This record gives sequence, C-alpha cells and structure tokens, in this order.
Amino acid sequence: MAPLKNNVFLRALMREPVPYTPVWLMRQAGRYLPEYKQTRAQAGSFMGLAQNPDYACEVTLQPLRRFALDAAILFSDILTVPDAMGLGLQFMEGEGPRFDRVVRDEAQVQALTVPDMDRLRYVFDAVTLIRRELDGKVPLIGFSGSPWTLACYMVEGRGSSDYRQIKTMLYQRPDLLHRILKINAQAVQQYLNAQIRAGAQAVMIFDSWGGVLADGLFQQFSLDYTRLVLSGLIREHEGERIPAVVFTKGGGMWIEDIAKSGCDAVGVDWTVNLGEARRRTGDQVAFQGNLDPMALFGGDEAIRREARRVIDDFGPVGEGGHIFNLGHGISQFTPPEAVTSLVDEVHMYSRQAHTG
Amino acid sequence: MAPLKNNVFLRALMREPVPYTPVWLMRQAGRYLPEYKQTRAQAGSFMGLAQNPDYACEVTLQPLRRFALDAAILFSDILTVPDAMGLGLQFMEGEGPRFDRVVRDEAQVQALTVPDMDRLRYVFDAVTLIRRELDGKVPLIGFSGSPWTLACYMVEGRGSSDYRQIKTMLYQRPDLLHRILKINAQAVQQYLNAQIRAGAQAVMIFDSWGGVLADGLFQQFSLDYTRLVLSGLIREHEGERIPAVVFTKGGGMWIEDIAKSGCDAVGVDWTVNLGEARRRTGDQVAFQGNLDPMALFGGDEAIRREARRVIDDFGPVGEGGHIFNLGHGISQFTPPEAVTSLVDEVHMYSRQAHTG
Repeated sequence: MAPLKNNVFLRALMREPVPYTPVWLMRQAGRYLPEYKQTRAQAGSFMGLAQNPDYACEVTLQPLRRFALDAAILFSDILTVPDAMGLGLQFMEGEGPRFDRVVRDEAQVQALTVPDMDRLRYVFDAVTLIRRELDGKVPLIGFSGSPWTLACYMVEGRGSSDYRQIKTMLYQRPDLLHRILKINAQAVQQYLNAQIRAGAQAVMIFDSWGGVLADGLFQQFSLDYTRLVLSGLIREHEGERIPAVVFTKGGGMWIEDIAKSGCDAVGVDWTVNLGEARRRTGDQVAFQGNLDPMALFGGDEAIRREARRVIDDFGPVGEGGHIFNLGHGISQFTPPEAVTSLVDEVHMYSRQAHTG
Repeated sequence: MAPLKNNVFLRALMREPVPYTPVWLMRQAGRYLPEYKQTRAQAGSFMGLAQNPDYACEVTLQPLRRFALDAAILFSDILTVPDAMGLGLQFMEGEGPRFDRVVRDEAQVQALTVPDMDRLRYVFDAVTLIRRELDGKVPLIGFSGSPWTLACYMVEGRGSSDYRQIKTMLYQRPDLLHRILKINAQAVQQYLNAQIRAGAQAVMIFDSWGGVLADGLFQQFSLDYTRLVLSGLIREHEGERIPAVVFTKGGGMWIEDIAKSGCDAVGVDWTVNLGEARRRTGDQVAFQGNLDPMALFGGDEAIRREARRVIDDFGPVGEGGHIFNLGHGISQFTPPEAVTSLVDEVHMYSRQAHTG
C-alpha cells in the first residue's frame, strides 16, 4: 500500500499535534451528490451498490474528488451484518430498510449465530480496492453498527419511532436480549477486524440508537457490548495504530462512560458543547463532531459562522484532539457547495487556532 | 371552588415535605383507555373532543376514576394556539396534526399576530368545568407548548424528522424566527394566564422539540422565549401559589440553564439520571420524571423494579422535590393495568423512602 500523504485525521484521533482540524462528514458519499445518484442508478439498487466492490469504491471516492476532506469512509450499510445472519435485508424505495425475518421469540433468538465472515467478503474486497485506489491520499475508515443498534433493527424488523418491540424484550426478557447482544458483539468484532486486515486504517462504531435507552440501561445494554467489541479489536496492524471512534447519537449525557470504553475518540451530536465535553472527560479521548447537519442549509455566511462556533467551543487543542464532523449524517437535500464552504472554513479558521 | 383534598403534587413542586412521591402521567387521558376511545368516537374527531368542554372534562377525569393519580391535566392539544392564529389545524387519521397554512416567508411572518384569547374560550371553559367536577380531589394542571415547539409546527406545517424548514429559517433568517418566537411567547403567556384565571392550579410548558436544537441555539431560540413566558406568568392566584414546570424532551444537557429560567420544576426524559440532575442544579428546582414509557410493557415485576430505580436514583428527598412521571407521553398501546402497578409501586415504595 502507498504511504499516507495526509495523516492529520489519524494524528488528531490520537491527540497528537496537527496543523489544522481535520474534517470529514458522516454519509459524505451519498444522495446529495449527483454523481452518487448516477452510480446508484447504474447499480440498480442500494444493495447492488454496496455489494459490488467497484461501485462501492467509486462512490467512496466521489466526495474526495470534490472536497478537501481528510478521510474517506467505506461506503456500506450497518445492516450488512444482520443480513449475513440470514435475516433478509430489503431496501424499499422511500421507506428505509426492512428485514424479512425478525428476532423476537425464544426460538428465533436461539437460532441466531455469528455469521460466516465469508458472506461479507464483498465488504472486505471493497476496503482493499478503496485503499489501493486512494493511493495514500487520505486514510480509510471502516465501520459497523453497535451491537445494540443492530439489535434494534433485528428485533423491530425496521426503523421505529418508539422501539416498543426491543424495549418490551429488554424489560420483560432481558436474558434474550443479552444473548442477541453477545452474538452481535462477536460478529461486529470479527467484522471490524476483517476490515482492518483488508486495509481500514481507523474504525468507527455507530451507536445510532443508543440514545433511546434510559440512563443505566444504556450502560448495560449498549455500552457494555461496545466495550466488548473494542476489547478484542486489532489495535495495531502492519506497524500502524488503528484508532477507534464510538459515536452515540443522543449520548451526550454519557460521554464520561463512553470515554472509558476503550475508544480513542467519542463522536457527539450537536446538543453537546465540545468545551464542556472536554472538561467532563479531562481530554482522555479525542472528540469528533458536531455541527447540526441542517446548518448546511443556512448559506455560506451561516455555515462559516457555525463552523467557527464549533471550533471555538472546542477551544485551543492543547492535549486534546478534535475531528470536525457533523453531529449526524449529511441530509440528502444538502447543496454540495455547502460542503465546499464548510471544509474551507474548518481548514482556514482552525489553522489560525492551531498555530496561534 | 372546593378546598383541595390532595396537595401532595403541589407541595412536591414547591419542594415542601410530602408523605410520598406524587405521580401523574403525561397524556394520562388518552387512547390507551377504552373509555377514552368511546368518548372520542362520540365526539367524532380529536378536535371535536378538545373543543367541547363537556367531552374534554369527561376524558380528563377518566384516568382519575381508574388510578390513584395525584394530579389531573387538562385534556387539550398544544396546537390550539397556532390554530387560533388562523393556521387551520387538521388531524388526519393515522398521520398526526397538519396545518393548512404555514409560516415561512417574510409576508407570512409579518401577518402573524397574537390571537384573540376569545377564540380559545373553549379551553378556559373546560378548565373551569374540570375544576368544578374535580371537587378538590386533586389539583388541575394547565399547559401550553413552548414558543419554539409551536414554531416548529407553524413553520414545518406538520411533524418533521429533520426540522429542515425551521432550521433553514433559523440559520438563514434568524430575524424572522425571532419575530415568530416573540409572538408565540406573548400568546403562550396570555393563554396560560387565562387558564390560571379559569382555575388551573399549576402550569406546564412542553418544549417537546427543544432537544433538536444545537447547544447554544437551544438557549437562544427556545429557552429565552420560555423564560419570557415565565416572566409574565401569574404566580399567585386567589391566595395560592401557581407553580410552573418546564419539560424539554432531549434537554438533559441543559438542565442547569433550564433550572434558572424561573420555573419551579424541570421535567426530564429517561436519559437523565435524577440524582445527577439534582447535584448539577443544587436542588434549586424540583424534578418531574422520568420512567421510559416503554417500561410499562415489561409486566408487573419489571414496572415495579424500574419505578423503584427512578425513586432510588432521585435519592432521599431532603431539600429537593420529585414528581414521578414518565419521560414522555404514555403509549397508546399500554395495557391500563400497567398504570395500576406503576402508581401502586410509586406510592408504596416512596412512602418508605419519605418516612425512612
């Protein structure tokens, strides 16, 4: 593999000195880009895109051709793992993902096993191809859903507004849910390790639905299993350290606990004040975030003002580490030029802050 | 009006000693009760129910006939105020509320005015009737949406998953949004004061969507206007103090700020640890909450265990005040007997804690 030309993202994750704040955006390869829509049309479907390494590589690289982003992230979906477990993933147009089979009763839970990683080979092949095509331009991030977030989809069968099915299981049959979570944790660990072996230079765990849990239960049913994943992760590969980021949407109340999970960085949404987050955790981890994705609808001036606000909230980097990102995925309705303004302002403004 | 036989709720709000933790549930008069569904069928529609004081009174009292709740809350909807502004509220079956007209451009914002409170007379008539029918059994809570939460519906025209319209206005034309919020604050203040004059013994402001705002912007675009409402509220009526509760879904990060808004109690969702909330605010306010509504699907044993956990998290009442509630509205799918278990456990378990 080619030597890395831009390691600012990796250095910031490890809280090493950097010349400016690195930036990438969750879901940066996505529907807001006309070229993405074109490739997706060629692929015929979302899974057609994700399961074909050539297409996955193409859409991963698209945002890097337009914007001066400091990292690439594998194009895939968090639901590839439960799909490999045999649950039958479907993407309905305008409806979001659905599973043909759910995991709700005792028999369904007992039948669940860690999937053969061979069924996910298309993901690892994509990782290797993207690494080659990146040619050392920026590092490549691999990712997975958290055990809890995957379980939400596996039990509900689809997105939910109240998580009634999985929470009924949690309160009524915690033993069944713990079993699902244990299997998910093993699967996620193997999945991320295979991505690392295939070439991922950092990994991220998306706990998109951790924030729907009650205080105390988040720690038991989500964070404990994320910790289990992290405990068995390959942390050095071919002589390079592989940093891990844990992002919990709505997890601002629990950043002290998340910071102690074994991750290098905590991803936070826009309800969190980054300066307070640093004070609460004593700079023991880096932070990734946390612009409201809707700020990208405010026009050039507002985008730059809000970007500066996030950087100012974080404050002088010192012993800390900051990776600029949105607080959630970019909206499909975002005008692409908004990203140009954002990346420009983050780099320009933070360069002063880092040298000043 | 008859003298109050049960003032435990009001005393807890004012952090005065109480023999046990009072309990009521957000949306306690609602679709999970078969008798509610029957009355609603008679009324023909949701607004037919809300706008008829006899029906509104009947459904307000229904949960009190079944459960030993310590407060009644006016049956109404937060969208009555924008409806009175002329936006044309519709409740579509299975779809949630919608407005015929939205407030998005400069002309629409300029045309907006504080509605004549006479258009909301049906609400105040319901309050007076309910007070009479309650006959001093428990106190009656009046309520309103917060200026920000009302604005979300007025600008979006309906519920939203990303709040793109109102946030585009916030980032691009904050002046327009501030104008809407100022008018909403005046309207909400007049609306709550009229409820107090009609007989409401406590008031609650629902900031259901405050939690979608970024840190810093929540304070400017939501809390500042809630504070404006509180600053002009009638705080004593006919010799009785009228306490005010502010509930912000997803507002756990900001309870220090909310506690300083002029309210007597802060309502919190289930992501908040009540013990930490007390430490963070130094017991300067009471707290209302915060069981996950989905815990009511766990069966008798889990309901009682989770209720005890909330009471234990709050800890010995001391100088504080705790009103037990859910962290959000009760689900329409809740089995009514779950509420019986919950109310019983809260009263029984907290009586030991308060005397022990």
